Amino acid sequence: MLSKNKIKFIRSLEQKKYRKEEQAFLAEGNKLVGDLLGHFECRLLVATEAWQTAHPGVTAEETVVVSKDELARASLLKAPQEVLAVFRQPAYSCDPSVAATELCLALDDVQDPGNLGTIVRIADWFGIRHIFCSIGTADLYNPKTVQATMGAMARVRLHYVALPELLQALPEGTPVYGTFLDGSDLYAQPLSAAGVVVMGNEGNGISAGVARLVNRRLLIPNYPVGAPTSESLNVAVATAVVCAEFRRGLRH
Amino acid sequence: MLSKNKIKFIRSLEQKKYRKEEQAFLAEGNKLVGDLLGHFECRLLVATEAWQTAHPGVTAEETVVVSKDELARASLLKAPQEVLAVFRQPAYSCDPSVAATELCLALDDVQDPGNLGTIVRIADWFGIRHIFCSIGTADLYNPKTVQATMGAMARVRLHYVALPELLQALPEGTPVYGTFLDGSDLYAQPLSAAGVVVMGNEGNGISAGVARLVNRRLLIPNYPVGAPTSESLNVAVATAVVCAEFRRGLRH
Repeated sequence: MLSKNKIKFIRSLEQKKYRKEEQAFLAEGNKLVGDLLGHFECRLLVATEAWQTAHPGVTAEETVVVSKDELARASLLKAPQEVLAVFRQPAYSCDPSVAATELCLALDDVQDPGNLGTIVRIADWFGIRHIFCSIGTADLYNPKTVQATMGAMARVRLHYVALPELLQALPEGTPVYGTFLDGSDLYAQPLSAAGVVVMGNEGNGISAGVARLVNRRLLIPNYPVGAPTSESLNVAVATAVVCAEFRRGLRH
Repeated sequence: MLSKNKIKFIRSLEQKKYRKEEQAFLAEGNKLVGDLLGHFECRLLVATEAWQTAHPGVTAEETVVVSKDELARASLLKAPQEVLAVFRQPAYSCDPSVAATELCLALDDVQDPGNLGTIVRIADWFGIRHIFCSIGTADLYNPKTVQATMGAMARVRLHYVALPELLQALPEGTPVYGTFLDGSDLYAQPLSAAGVVVMGNEGNGISAGVARLVNRRLLIPNYPVGAPTSESLNVAVATAVVCAEFRRGLRH
């Protein structure tokens, strides 16, 4: 039985204010909750009896068994599933020097929760473990973002920081890449195995204050070069094309 | 002045049934409408006086000047802009043999309107002019898809067809690529300048009936290979990574 207060609490996590106050976030669905359990501390697990029976080993600080109808009342999804969970937000320490030894991403005000979630999933696919996010970047713990990560947030750490200061604090000589319409062909130059790749805001690209700190300007060329085309790629799509090329270079 | 009937007509275009009956689709916003005018026949243009004054050369079968409030009543957007337009759906002829001379995409039940729009934008960026869509693929003329194409639908043609039959009708020897978890490394083999690249449904990938007709099975390798990671990339993201690699090969 799910009390009115618990339903209110769960649904309040749609709003950043309450997520911050509670240092908590919501995840829904069998696959996603399963992927996150064991990686994040589970404060509240709400599941049907069928789900509980099928997952005997799961531990949470508090577990509530509900009917599907009760679950639907707490859910933010159009098609509620068998389980939802409230996890504690982890506290990660952030050391910029990690970028001297491995490839990291930096996001300069990526606004759309879905784009952010997709980028986390891309980072995970390409073995990128750290993403530095400007303060204005969408919140990882937005339920839409959490769902869009498809569980990849269990393996990728996001650090919300003042991005110019972070970039200035990098060890000397760390390559800082960014994509610009007047950058150099991504495919025509060596790409390093470590460093930072900055991706910009959906509408405005990389801000001037961050652009100044980019020391390797890249361009994703269209095809055929110079043909009339869309003015840009979606930011998650561009992230994928760039990350794929960095990793290809390490293999072949 | 926008009549109640016109508002009803415009808003009805959110539904596929009415789009099909009317062979029409809706586009909103200054940038998008500007990109589509001149490429599609404009049946109805609804704009503020300020917009009309700024765009004197625009022709439409019918033009209605409205206040911003009136425009908002007809709009499907959360943040209505200065202009919306109803265009006629074009009728394209579809000749499978085009795939013998240029690279085409095929979508096997891509469901999400946003993914479809993003894929059209990717195709445009990489100079792909034809996309064969299975009958179950999301509708290009869904307003969400139209918005997500960011104007790229002016240059890319979508053909809704029975996909297995289309693939069987290709000229002999046409390469048909598809991505599979047990495919061969995308980066470890020659890719052709023409042919078809099939992308599958978000949840289920490429259907069995279509998979049988794929003659070159590809894999987008993760990094490092074999690391625990997300189980897949978003379909639009995967499309971009594959298209980028096909086009890279033609340049370098």
